[in-house]
Amino acid sequence: MRSGIVTLLTDFGSADYFVGAMKGVILARSPSATIVDITHSVPPHDIRTAAFILNCAYSYFPAGSIHLAVVDPGVGSDRRPIVVETSDYLFVGPDNGLFSTILERVHEAQVRQVTNSEYFLPNLSSTFHGRDLFAPVAAALASGLSPETLGPIVSDPIRLGLTQNRLTTEGAIVGSIIHVDHFGNCVTSFESNQLPALSAGQRFCLSVKGINIRQLRKHYAEPGATDDEPFLVAGSAGYLEISLSCSSAAKELKITVGEPLRLVMG
Amino acid sequence: MRSGIVTLLTDFGSADYFVGAMKGVILARSPSATIVDITHSVPPHDIRTAAFILNCAYSYFPAGSIHLAVVDPGVGSDRRPIVVETSDYLFVGPDNGLFSTILERVHEAQVRQVTNSEYFLPNLSSTFHGRDLFAPVAAALASGLSPETLGPIVSDPIRLGLTQNRLTTEGAIVGSIIHVDHFGNCVTSFESNQLPALSAGQRFCLSVKGINIRQLRKHYAEPGATDDEPFLVAGSAGYLEISLSCSSAAKELKITVGEPLRLVMG
Amino acid sequence: MRSGIVTLLTDFGSADYFVGAMKGVILARSPSATIVDITHSVPPHDIRTAAFILNCAYSYFPAGSIHLAVVDPGVGSDRRPIVVETSDYLFVGPDNGLFSTILERVHEAQVRQVTNSEYFLPNLSSTFHGRDLFAPVAAALASGLSPETLGPIVSDPIRLGLTQNRLTTEGAIVGSIIHVDHFGNCVTSFESNQLPALSAGQRFCLSVKGINIRQLRKHYAEPGATDDEPFLVAGSAGYLEISLSCSSAAKELKITVGEPLRLVMG
Repeated sequence: MRSGIVTLLTDFGSADYFVGAMKGVILARSPSATIVDITHSVPPHDIRTAAFILNCAYSYFPAGSIHLAVVDPGVGSDRRPIVVETSDYLFVGPDNGLFSTILERVHEAQVRQVTNSEYFLPNLSSTFHGRDLFAPVAAALASGLSPETLGPIVSDPIRLGLTQNRLTTEGAIVGSIIHVDHFGNCVTSFESNQLPALSAGQRFCLSVKGINIRQLRKHYAEPGATDDEPFLVAGSAGYLEISLSCSSAAKELKITVGEPLRLVMG
Repeated sequence: MRSGIVTLLTDFGSADYFVGAMKGVILARSPSATIVDITHSVPPHDIRTAAFILNCAYSYFPAGSIHLAVVDPGVGSDRRPIVVETSDYLFVGPDNGLFSTILERVHEAQVRQVTNSEYFLPNLSSTFHGRDLFAPVAAALASGLSPETLGPIVSDPIRLGLTQNRLTTEGAIVGSIIHVDHFGNCVTSFESNQLPALSAGQRFCLSVKGINIRQLRKHYAEPGATDDEPFLVAGSAGYLEISLSCSSAAKELKITVGEPLRLVMG
Repeated sequence: MRSGIVTLLTDFGSADYFVGAMKGVILARSPSATIVDITHSVPPHDIRTAAFILNCAYSYFPAGSIHLAVVDPGVGSDRRPIVVETSDYLFVGPDNGLFSTILERVHEAQVRQVTNSEYFLPNLSSTFHGRDLFAPVAAALASGLSPETLGPIVSDPIRLGLTQNRLTTEGAIVGSIIHVDHFGNCVTSFESNQLPALSAGQRFCLSVKGINIRQLRKHYAEPGATDDEPFLVAGSAGYLEISLSCSSAAKELKITVGEPLRLVMG
């Protein structure tokens, strides 16, 4: 069963004709579809950020929703258009790692290459598959089309290792910053629920850019000993975040995505 | 009766997963809801700007609409989640002054603290109540839930004095800039309809940053005596605005929110 | 027949109350309307960019859709509010050239001045016709109102010549950059399908800012001889674009809208 919802996640920005044209195509093909923007402000060609955001948003939508994600630097090349089917959702987009987080999380996901061109716009361009290929395929799926109709199973979809933590011989966990949010909170690669000792109050030290962070707070506004010191918080995406009370940790500490981290417990 | 419309006003930006997750929750809980973005670009933690924008937009929506506003620097602390009920609308969000303009304007408004956690997402986070608490409560209200079910009456909701004009002993009215709009028009704290003499053609002098403005124009494109001089105009939010013909008054005159103003009639 | 869809294209930005108020008015007047944002990020007062974006997006929407476009520096003056009717769509907005591309493309389009104030909001402001005039008129049209009801035929709507190429005596085609997209691709005034020889492989030289471009690629990711050289590509808007492989051609080559171009074939 389908919810009729089609979500959009792209790097197309919101100042151009790209998103409008895609929405027009979806509504022309599936007039009762409900279109929901997740974001169009993924940095151009940044597949990893898109995968992170998709992972944080998709599961809140009703079962039967279609998630259309187009960050597609290889548009027009031989990269495969795919549909990923999980028990609850369908994902549509290019096979370039965009769905890595979904494939990591949902092991029974079935991936198909879209080879059936029946649903494409006539005169498929080689520069805008979001409009000409992915949008009409998503619309067809929203209207009830079975993914089987679209093409054969793909056994080797591209997967990007997005969060690669490792344990050092000294017992430290080494990771990195995987996202910086709108408020400047720096999302680490450490999942909160995999560090129960930390939440339970065990002492720790997280090193980033030569700074040692030793406080864990429950929320951003909790009064701290010294209010201009960075602290950790269990963020809403499921990861520990580096934060500052009333300002942007990313800006103040000059932290960007990829910044290496080192966590020592005890 | 409910319109099924849920409007959103936040400081979450549109580049992150925050807004997408909230929309997913609303549609999962209230599948026939119509979600309308007012804005997600309130400057981070800027409750006053959010209150101003909410006040300028809410009353244009059909009666029975739910207005969900989340600018929530105190998320996770003991600040109260509230629902404000007027004869036409329901407002949902944190009790931090966001609804000051509504409470000022609608005297019979009833405020309730949301204490009933039945509608919250399971595993309420302490960092994202927009998703875990406010969105599902708004969805329940959109589906017809009565606010009474959510919790007890609050008699002392937080009110921020947003427009505090005062009369000097010399008869001048002292106020301030309360908003700078997208075009650089500077919205003053002087309501147009409280200065009928001015609209009727009486002479006046508005002083701002050492400049004296003595012209009132009917619209932005009205040809003036000297086209690079700032003028007043009765803006669409109900306040007098300081404007320039073809450029940003805020940029040219270096005016920001809070700038003091002095108006002398005659 | 109407689709119930109302698209919005403005220069109002998305940080203010403008767009929210317009959407409220539309939903209050036409509760079953589906509102779709094309963009609100047209540079302030930039009618040409708005006309370009409208032209690239409108035709993908279902027949019977209303396209509401408000870039309106002359709001409150005597510029005419108009409705443009084509066999498939209705366009609503100010008569300032916004619909030039539509009038150029659809020769049987009928233009009417909106003189009937019956559908306007009471207390029409002189500074925000998007909310007070255009939105309620668009809502009435979405609900089935006939354009005839709104006012008389206009025979001389304002037309801006948007793409003015000319042939030189030496046989070169002289044009200009008409749009820079979100990725920095520079859209030229040369329509791809009017240069079949070029697509068929004939040699050419496009000169811009002292650089000579001699490569045509099929898509942005096509491996080239030298990957940091600019190339032409047949873009999704129907025009040739100047692009770079993995970066912004606009930024690297310092190209902006209006930049002159000279194309020589053979």
